[in-house]
Amino acid sequence: MKSSFRPTYETIQEILVDHELATLGDAYTNFIYSLFLSIRNGRPTGSKANSSMLSKALKQAGLRELMSSRMDRHGQADAAEALLVYVWLQDLTTISESVALLVKHKNVTEAFSSLLSRAKEKLNL
Amino acid sequence: MKSSFRPTYETIQEILVDHELATLGDAYTNFIYSLFLSIRNGRPTGSKANSSMLSKALKQAGLRELMSSRMDRHGQADAAEALLVYVWLQDLTTISESVALLVKHKNVTEAFSSLLSRAKEKLNL
Repeated sequence: MKSSFRPTYETIQEILVDHELATLGDAYTNFIYSLFLSIRNGRPTGSKANSSMLSKALKQAGLRELMSSRMDRHGQADAAEALLVYVWLQDLTTISESVALLVKHKNVTEAFSSLLSRAKEKLNL
Repeated sequence: MKSSFRPTYETIQEILVDHELATLGDAYTNFIYSLFLSIRNGRPTGSKANSSMLSKALKQAGLRELMSSRMDRHGQADAAEALLVYVWLQDLTTISESVALLVKHKNVTEAFSSLLSRAKEKLNL
């Protein structure tokens, strides 16, 4: 299913700046964020992960420094979303595994920073 | 993971009008719709499933008649989204299986109508 459109990259930087990947990543990230909130609230909850939180999480995960210093907050959030969906497309993680990691953290930014750090490790680029 | 917040229902009507379930269903539906478009376009694509398409799909699947005739288009789209995520939460389907069914159809409304029909069958309520 995923193999028909999955791009391949040789560096993590290529993933972080792929705008098409970020648009799919946005849908993916909102879904796992909504699952995280649903578990935390004990009832179904839908929401959008905001750019400010995602850009902070990218920085905390040590990924911000891989990008141009001129990249704005939205570009940084896009980078986080692109990376998160990419490891899922590559079958390096599952939705259940990702959400299980997120809910180990009380703070949302730390939760996503942790998920991004693990994504970077799994990619091994 | 899903069991900590998964509601249970005795009738399909209860699912169709659950607004909380619909908010999570919105995130789920946008994600599977984006995967469907990604496969069709041959490259990563993110988008939102629109209310008009979802309400038509609900009608085509024979589910509209289970709801109040006063329910507007947005309420009908919410109903479709709630049902789609509910069968996933109940482990009656997977994302891969759902997207594989969607891509069998050229027409988007027919694709979602088919997915909703199968969701109804699987629920067996």
